[in-house]
Amino acid sequence: MDISSIDISTNIPETMETDTNNEKTIGIIGGLGPEATADFFNRIIRNTPTEKDHLHVIIDNNPKAPNRNPAIAGTGPSPFESFKQSALRLKQAGAELLVMPCNTAHAFKDAIIHNVDTPFIDIVEEATAHIAKHYPTIEKAGLLAVDGCLQTRLYHNALAGWEIETQCLDTRAQHDFMELIYQIKASGVNADIKQTMMSFARSLEDNGAEVIIAGCTEVPLVLSPKDLSIPLIDSTEILATQCVRYARQG
Amino acid sequence: MDISSIDISTNIPETMETDTNNEKTIGIIGGLGPEATADFFNRIIRNTPTEKDHLHVIIDNNPKAPNRNPAIAGTGPSPFESFKQSALRLKQAGAELLVMPCNTAHAFKDAIIHNVDTPFIDIVEEATAHIAKHYPTIEKAGLLAVDGCLQTRLYHNALAGWEIETQCLDTRAQHDFMELIYQIKASGVNADIKQTMMSFARSLEDNGAEVIIAGCTEVPLVLSPKDLSIPLIDSTEILATQCVRYARQG
Repeated sequence: MDISSIDISTNIPETMETDTNNEKTIGIIGGLGPEATADFFNRIIRNTPTEKDHLHVIIDNNPKAPNRNPAIAGTGPSPFESFKQSALRLKQAGAELLVMPCNTAHAFKDAIIHNVDTPFIDIVEEATAHIAKHYPTIEKAGLLAVDGCLQTRLYHNALAGWEIETQCLDTRAQHDFMELIYQIKASGVNADIKQTMMSFARSLEDNGAEVIIAGCTEVPLVLSPKDLSIPLIDSTEILATQCVRYARQG
Repeated sequence: MDISSIDISTNIPETMETDTNNEKTIGIIGGLGPEATADFFNRIIRNTPTEKDHLHVIIDNNPKAPNRNPAIAGTGPSPFESFKQSALRLKQAGAELLVMPCNTAHAFKDAIIHNVDTPFIDIVEEATAHIAKHYPTIEKAGLLAVDGCLQTRLYHNALAGWEIETQCLDTRAQHDFMELIYQIKASGVNADIKQTMMSFARSLEDNGAEVIIAGCTEVPLVLSPKDLSIPLIDSTEILATQCVRYARQG
């Protein structure tokens, strides 16, 4: 083949996009942190049925947003304005569905839903509706989540709406859980961390929990369904599958 | 130091963003394919020195852009307008540097550089400048790249600018290389694929190549520097490190 003779400038139809169906463009409010955003993006890709179905996804990965945990504790600035700007940027860029792959950040979701009319898929609502649908007889759900998520009662309130009680760790174990999360963020996962995380899940089960909610994006990095004798509710995975489903519904 | 005496709840300015330095926001023209975009995003994260240095990254992952390979072969529509719209969307959203983690797509880079004034970091220019800088005595570079990348002579021309000759696979091996790339895209990596890819690299070396350019985002998924007796030039990794460097320079 003589490649020097190929002129790519001629006879090529000019189409703007091949996106002629009704699929929705997904907008991800990310950076909370970047690893969780990259993990969520990978889950969107993995949950797409075939190569030709891959979705248009716009990601605003902004790790400069003030940390939601100090903000909730009243010891740091609010990320409200930053989330609002992120939602506005994504809408302007063409996002038709918005998601935020961070449970605790949902304490500030008004920044999104009060400022853009783009539908917002709420991770807490999706995870709790998933429990109610798939485990309809459940009375008590165990919750592994960071302090800010507990303080704002995101899961407590949503589960109460389904008449499900929330079982948290006791004060001392919750303190140790927070230490473990910081350890995972700083240096990844090892066998000791996995054992400790499993012991937290077991203590929730001992207190009557019938499922364990991974209510923090770090938990599924350590814990998988086969580590537990009761179901693990992976909120990040549920958000990703629902996100793909809603986007493909058009 | 007695940290219990520190009161951080006062004097905290209400800032919109904590991004007060001169860092630049990175815009990624992605979706070519989504896995390569996710891999590139992970490399940006990994190449960021510490957690507090994470950069604002906006990704337009648009897998609906027409495939660049049929477009170059003259058998499919051009992605030109799609890349232009992606660049405009990212600029509008606040991107201050643009990159496109796909070698072959650079055949259409005019769609970006002729339509936005945002600086564009070119993967081919960065990879070839890297070779010239780190291996200044080299006369011949081996190239593992898809047909569209060869036909448009992206690497041939850039290497010629550094007085380096490009060594490609022979016609038959190039055909087999394309088959291998489609196999990786469809079903991932295995030991046989790795062996075959290594044999392609060795045939380039037998023909005088002094380095091997991974000029396609799938190649580094199979081949690592330790598999070769001569240096592997990972264009994706070079683009990621340069991208972080330029963004942090402000």
